[in-house]
Amino acid sequence: MNPTGHVYLNGRILPASQAAISPFDVGILRGYAVFDLFQTINGEPFQLEDHLARFRASADMLGLTVPADDAEITAVVHELLTLNGYPEAIVRLVLTGGESADGMHFDPKTPTFFIITHELFEVPETAYVNGTRLLTKEHRREVPEAKTTNYITWLRNHDLIERNGAIDLLYHADGLVSEAATASFYVVRDGKIHAPDAGVLPGTVGRMVMQRAASRFEVVYGPLTLEDTLSADEAFITSSVRGVVPIVQIDDHTIGDGRVGAITKALMDICREEMRG
Amino acid sequence: MNPTGHVYLNGRILPASQAAISPFDVGILRGYAVFDLFQTINGEPFQLEDHLARFRASADMLGLTVPADDAEITAVVHELLTLNGYPEAIVRLVLTGGESADGMHFDPKTPTFFIITHELFEVPETAYVNGTRLLTKEHRREVPEAKTTNYITWLRNHDLIERNGAIDLLYHADGLVSEAATASFYVVRDGKIHAPDAGVLPGTVGRMVMQRAASRFEVVYGPLTLEDTLSADEAFITSSVRGVVPIVQIDDHTIGDGRVGAITKALMDICREEMRG
Repeated sequence: MNPTGHVYLNGRILPASQAAISPFDVGILRGYAVFDLFQTINGEPFQLEDHLARFRASADMLGLTVPADDAEITAVVHELLTLNGYPEAIVRLVLTGGESADGMHFDPKTPTFFIITHELFEVPETAYVNGTRLLTKEHRREVPEAKTTNYITWLRNHDLIERNGAIDLLYHADGLVSEAATASFYVVRDGKIHAPDAGVLPGTVGRMVMQRAASRFEVVYGPLTLEDTLSADEAFITSSVRGVVPIVQIDDHTIGDGRVGAITKALMDICREEMRG
Repeated sequence: MNPTGHVYLNGRILPASQAAISPFDVGILRGYAVFDLFQTINGEPFQLEDHLARFRASADMLGLTVPADDAEITAVVHELLTLNGYPEAIVRLVLTGGESADGMHFDPKTPTFFIITHELFEVPETAYVNGTRLLTKEHRREVPEAKTTNYITWLRNHDLIERNGAIDLLYHADGLVSEAATASFYVVRDGKIHAPDAGVLPGTVGRMVMQRAASRFEVVYGPLTLEDTLSADEAFITSSVRGVVPIVQIDDHTIGDGRVGAITKALMDICREEMRG
């Protein structure tokens, strides 16, 4: 699976095979990097402004600054999409601290900034129809409000997730649930939607759906215990690339009656309306 | 501070400026990488075997395999040292999961393996004579027994460490101390040396010094509370690059009488004998 197509790196668009990150980059030596990603819909970036804002916020939390304004990035993204010609794409923006001769000191004024794309992958339709599964994992992300590149726990467990017919990990610590490894997490209890609001990455699609659903459903943000999660009536994740995905099993616990719940279905409809326009 | 000299990358030795890591590498996209490093003494790698063994163990914990045997790596290291000609060097071995077209799937059979060097930095002699300081930080490393590349918490606080005249962070969680961000941590209480033995990276210099000191001092491995740490008689860190460094202050707490303790001094002497012998 060799990457092909064009990428953007530090001001230039070039073939992927010619894009060279230095082995002295703290993004690789020290995992000192943030990213963000979004999908295209009908070839157009979806929620680009939200993702650029979150990308800049993540960078700020690591003392870094994205070295391009929104207009420049938008132009580059469109150029890459045209050059690479995927029917629909995932676009990934990555910012690292840049090179460091000693693996310790680096100049935040010379970061490494690149943009890569690949073809959009689709979640199997059965996951939306029948619901899918999460595996719990005790873990707390290190800078949870920032989208850093550190996904060791997720990647280490990626085979386990796929082997168990699950879609993601559900992180929890000290009895409280935070988020899925690659998505936001919500439950429904007694007709209300509940979601953790601290120690999590702000989700762009989750926020959009909750805003659109505000007149119909109450959303309660606050601490969510693992116990309340496992005994919830419904559960779902939200993600930029997958929309709203119903969760009917967590480890070996069945959520609700094991079928996609009514409120989850309503939110899936809202999300699809927004995303399929 | 541009890196210069030669590096090794996936089977080839080449100038640093020509060494190209793909932006699709999961070492950079997902922080999925391990490393190890050692210094030279009189131009010769110090404790090379120990570091290679630990490097392989770290790789194994991430489901990766170092694609070269010890003899090949040793030969490459010597060639790099000759080419780069530093009076004394730090050598860094890095292994990532390799390229991934979608940032998710990768083939562990095609990892990225590189070796870079830079000049050895010296800790100021005053730190050894007067002792130095640690700043506590609540944090638990994600895969603590593996030397992964994730040093976000340390790098984010690097300026703070230097501004406060400290040498490193001291990680603790749930009231228990684990290790410094870049070194092993020990205290002395009532004439005995104490060190955590779980949830920490096995230190090569620490182990060497404790073995050499075994006939003179008792070493107790087990849980170490932050409370016992702050009220200890002596404290010190051990590191491949810095040897035994006395700690006389942790945050604003003075350790013991604020001077380098007798047992710490004895261990520093043992370490220097081994390292300068």
